Amino acid sequence: MHVGPAGGMNVASVHRIITTDPADTSGLLDAVEQGLDPSRVIAVVGKTEGNGCVNDFTRGMAATAWQAALPVPVIAVMSGGTEGVLSPHVTVIAEEDEDDRHPAGALVVAAARTMTIAADMLGQRAHAEAVASTVRQLRASTGIGTEDVHFVVVKCPLRTLGGDTYTSMAASRAASALGVARALDEIDDDELARGLAGDTDVHSGVASASAGVEVDCCEIVLLGHHPDAHGPLRASHVVMRDALDIHPVQRMLTDIEAAGGRLLHLFAKAEADPTSTIRGRRHTMLTDSDIHSTRHARAALGGVLAALSGETAIYVSGGAEHQGPAGGGPVTAIWRLPD
Amino acid sequence: MHVGPAGGMNVASVHRIITTDPADTSGLLDAVEQGLDPSRVIAVVGKTEGNGCVNDFTRGMAATAWQAALPVPVIAVMSGGTEGVLSPHVTVIAEEDEDDRHPAGALVVAAARTMTIAADMLGQRAHAEAVASTVRQLRASTGIGTEDVHFVVVKCPLRTLGGDTYTSMAASRAASALGVARALDEIDDDELARGLAGDTDVHSGVASASAGVEVDCCEIVLLGHHPDAHGPLRASHVVMRDALDIHPVQRMLTDIEAAGGRLLHLFAKAEADPTSTIRGRRHTMLTDSDIHSTRHARAALGGVLAALSGETAIYVSGGAEHQGPAGGGPVTAIWRLPD
Amino acid sequence: MHVGPAGGMNVASVHRIITTDPADTSGLLDAVEQGLDPSRVIAVVGKTEGNGCVNDFTRGMAATAWQAALPVPVIAVMSGGTEGVLSPHVTVIAEEDEDDRHPAGALVVAAARTMTIAADMLGQRAHAEAVASTVRQLRASTGIGTEDVHFVVVKCPLRTLGGDTYTSMAASRAASALGVARALDEIDDDELARGLAGDTDVHSGVASASAGVEVDCCEIVLLGHHPDAHGPLRASHVVMRDALDIHPVQRMLTDIEAAGGRLLHLFAKAEADPTSTIRGRRHTMLTDSDIHSTRHARAALGGVLAALSGETAIYVSGGAEHQGPAGGGPVTAIWRLPD
Amino acid sequence: MHVGPAGGMNVASVHRIITTDPADTSGLLDAVEQGLDPSRVIAVVGKTEGNGCVNDFTRGMAATAWQAALPVPVIAVMSGGTEGVLSPHVTVIAEEDEDDRHPAGALVVAAARTMTIAADMLGQRAHAEAVASTVRQLRASTGIGTEDVHFVVVKCPLRTLGGDTYTSMAASRAASALGVARALDEIDDDELARGLAGDTDVHSGVASASAGVEVDCCEIVLLGHHPDAHGPLRASHVVMRDALDIHPVQRMLTDIEAAGGRLLHLFAKAEADPTSTIRGRRHTMLTDSDIHSTRHARAALGGVLAALSGETAIYVSGGAEHQGPAGGGPVTAIWRLPD
Repeated sequence: MHVGPAGGMNVASVHRIITTDPADTSGLLDAVEQGLDPSRVIAVVGKTEGNGCVNDFTRGMAATAWQAALPVPVIAVMSGGTEGVLSPHVTVIAEEDEDDRHPAGALVVAAARTMTIAADMLGQRAHAEAVASTVRQLRASTGIGTEDVHFVVVKCPLRTLGGDTYTSMAASRAASALGVARALDEIDDDELARGLAGDTDVHSGVASASAGVEVDCCEIVLLGHHPDAHGPLRASHVVMRDALDIHPVQRMLTDIEAAGGRLLHLFAKAEADPTSTIRGRRHTMLTDSDIHSTRHARAALGGVLAALSGETAIYVSGGAEHQGPAGGGPVTAIWRLPD
Repeated sequence: MHVGPAGGMNVASVHRIITTDPADTSGLLDAVEQGLDPSRVIAVVGKTEGNGCVNDFTRGMAATAWQAALPVPVIAVMSGGTEGVLSPHVTVIAEEDEDDRHPAGALVVAAARTMTIAADMLGQRAHAEAVASTVRQLRASTGIGTEDVHFVVVKCPLRTLGGDTYTSMAASRAASALGVARALDEIDDDELARGLAGDTDVHSGVASASAGVEVDCCEIVLLGHHPDAHGPLRASHVVMRDALDIHPVQRMLTDIEAAGGRLLHLFAKAEADPTSTIRGRRHTMLTDSDIHSTRHARAALGGVLAALSGETAIYVSGGAEHQGPAGGGPVTAIWRLPD
Repeated sequence: MHVGPAGGMNVASVHRIITTDPADTSGLLDAVEQGLDPSRVIAVVGKTEGNGCVNDFTRGMAATAWQAALPVPVIAVMSGGTEGVLSPHVTVIAEEDEDDRHPAGALVVAAARTMTIAADMLGQRAHAEAVASTVRQLRASTGIGTEDVHFVVVKCPLRTLGGDTYTSMAASRAASALGVARALDEIDDDELARGLAGDTDVHSGVASASAGVEVDCCEIVLLGHHPDAHGPLRASHVVMRDALDIHPVQRMLTDIEAAGGRLLHLFAKAEADPTSTIRGRRHTMLTDSDIHSTRHARAALGGVLAALSGETAIYVSGGAEHQGPAGGGPVTAIWRLPD
Repeated sequence: MHVGPAGGMNVASVHRIITTDPADTSGLLDAVEQGLDPSRVIAVVGKTEGNGCVNDFTRGMAATAWQAALPVPVIAVMSGGTEGVLSPHVTVIAEEDEDDRHPAGALVVAAARTMTIAADMLGQRAHAEAVASTVRQLRASTGIGTEDVHFVVVKCPLRTLGGDTYTSMAASRAASALGVARALDEIDDDELARGLAGDTDVHSGVASASAGVEVDCCEIVLLGHHPDAHGPLRASHVVMRDALDIHPVQRMLTDIEAAGGRLLHLFAKAEADPTSTIRGRRHTMLTDSDIHSTRHARAALGGVLAALSGETAIYVSGGAEHQGPAGGGPVTAIWRLPD
């Protein structure tokens, strides 16, 4: 995946496209004019304006539209819910030739699917191990060190029949995140077992998992730095310990600015703290029977990150089981070096 | 209202009480232990965990509970909706004797009711003028200059029958805010007329209006600095031009900290930008038929202000018509001088 | 409970009072003018206009208001949710002297509380047995045969902390209904065990359970015919096998009419069929993340029963676990003999 | 439109297809096996499982999927919202050769589009007249008398920008229904004017209008009896004066049964009574800020009609402005003569 048409290595490009409705792909044209080669797109990762919960058909609409708009099969990770100030958009992640005018250590991308996650595997150890195995292969094939991985997004399946679908979505995200954490040696086998058993302290700092009816396997996109690849893009990541924990994010943004960088995109996970409190204060997200807690959490964290970055077209996805600590979550910034 | 039992002037005290449900007043005991004289309470201003929209009965529950818990009649301004990270609480605003150990220029409070706002006055010029007249009387009786007023909260009526109740809530808030702005010379008669005609540029920087079925007049609480009163509390206010406009808030918080002050509370207004965009990006708050836009807006701005201040028990109220510019809103900080 | 002030037996009276908001008890005056003795009220059973789910405070508001309005302590079973055509109301169930001008076999009422249901008992066998024990005592003390019981309404507790509150509500209703069924010999010990283990075929034909944060025990009201009591009221009940099963209801209403009776009230339970189908057709109540399935179910069954009876102020309560077969539920009619 | 390939007249066929999700067209195959000629489909009229309000993308998904699945352009009227017991489905209305083995007076179908309804026409007289003109042309071209028309379904546009979109949906449905009523001489010019001015007594007994972002003109499908066409299908219609008014529906179903007919489908309109009362009792559909009133109304009437007909895959559409009297609505049955 990393030797390009011109003989050099491939590096990642990231184009953010604003959408006017879930099936809108018209912005692709602009991206192509800015240099995107649609035949080299690896993944599209987007936010659609549905409820982000079980009966959100906007994810499928968007995935179908983007698959149709692109000349090659891609991995489409669509996350529903643009509550509050968030703005619907799609990020197109592609490969392009490396460019020696830029320093080495550039952002590269790799993507793959796991085997089918059978209904009785969902949320279980076998599910986590399938994810871990695929993440390891992606790393091996691209030559990225574990500590150079900054973002691993997983689209994972859910069950709609026979039981609580929310629970199924949460379990699927949990096993996926734990699989990522295991593959990157963020946790050991023992911690994996504890995480699967419900210990919310066990977590990944770079995983981002979304569940949807559109898939029956896990689709995985990995972004990291390759020591030998030359290119203009970089990624950074931090972990918020709760929704108010803005200092790591502020530091990351300040560091990017200090390096002369230009922020291209933010990817983050949000969740209502499962203890029903934040810093000792009660929140009401988990007892609101009119609005699902994931919608509350995206609205709140979306406001926080949009205010810090000045940008509302950012990826804030709900349900952060084992993606950061309980009530918190990872935030990844994609940015561009100065020319 | 400003000559206290001890012969000196009265100054304002502010106690924030965390609540476990809309009718919970048990925290009053702690406040009394900390020095609150319940017989000198002027107003309670709180956030309850209902939907903050038409059928939110938690506002009335809370108002009834606090009226019953206090030995004197008070003005109860209850605002529904603690979306996202926001935490239900009540702020008890009382009078206490001034204290010469503190510098002059202390925070004082005054409160009054307008005449009944008849159904055909609601949202009209007569409504705004009734509010303006009462605000002027409050200022006159307390001797606070227009520029020393930092917060005017108005509880105003709505209509539930015959038509769109949301529209009625918005019109009532609008006329109330414009009345405050006129009384404080933030706007002139011409601007008042334009505001009532729908010009969203015309606004107050200190008004905060909430509509509820519980009242048939406007109940008004004014907080400002009196040049001659000695006491430990101060207020500051800024206006956010949109939900991302955090710099004025950051500066205000930094200034308070630089003065050695301790933040006691924040009061803010939130609204979905009526143009359906924020800084050129589309938002989806106004087209979401599952969640009212005021709930989205409170969740987002609540996240922003809680993250900046590190506190989730803050007053973020929805529907900011003429309370700050369209899509933005005023933020008032109550803080305490160093001892 | 069954020897009245005049020496004869007590019989039940039922007054339906229309309410204008959850705390409205003003209709009590009319009921008193129609002969209700407020000091002999046993229970109030009502529908309030909240969401009927976890954060529905209108139930507590109504219960508090009715307890305050009545001169004696009563059992208040408030069920939230008047979706669709349903109309908020309260049914006041009281005792009055028997009246020999009417035939024997009159409706009588009895009520009691179980011991406290500890958190770890909730939804378990001990919970069901506590209910069964209290129902047996009520029957014994009143001398009503098992087959003469037509309605047993149970207000049962729920847990709001640590886990899925919906699940807790459902488990509490389930154990309560199974306890009623066991006490009335509708099921045997073996079936009780199967029911507690999740077999939805095991059910009561007369139980109606509502969960709420307002109680920490089960409050139980039983209505049945006493062979020796003379009075004008009667009850009938049928079981709908699904929400479309109107023939039993139509027959019951026709029989009442044929007897010259006048329908006073209907009590019914509604639920979304847990198989996600009704008569082989898919329904979408369980996958709708914007509206809880109990709200859908009340709206639909409320429409059906209001249309059949011509009355919208009827009691349709959501969550019919083991109250009728899965997807169905019991319907009890209270009616008055011709004079 | 009415001379078929075989030289005789065309008559209407109606196939109801159950769907598993908004984009599911797989049931078309079965319909074709049962005799449907996909190249002769005129219209698809369906219910999808979105919220039926402004941000319901399932309507567009379904319309796109059916346009793609059929070999000819068709009119797709998709109505969102399968609340309560209602089941998602699509009714395929096609033409087939008349069949002399059946009596004359068969159901025929005609469909057409109006000119574009410009934004400033929406809901105005020009909108109603455009609909009326097209309905008159449909009648003239097919030779159906005004009294032989039993169903006219109109898909009409809405505005999403600049103001209240709900209001825009209602105004669009209103003008469409009034246009149908005028074209069928249900109302005169004077009544049309009164209806457009807001008189809810002015209504059609056969119109069914749905608004959606998918169209910028009105798409109209008319079903009626042609005196000379031989075929097995018939339609009947009644008007419910409110959601409880089941007697006309019961009579219609009894008449069909008495004629040996088999019910194929029901089309109905539902709305919350705008007076906030039904038969003198308060309803809470218009003050519920968590669930839009159209969702309540569909759930309730859907329950009623499903219970009467024993079928949940029926078309119950919300927002019945001038479609039947205020709070009521028309119900059309499609049925098949005995063979």
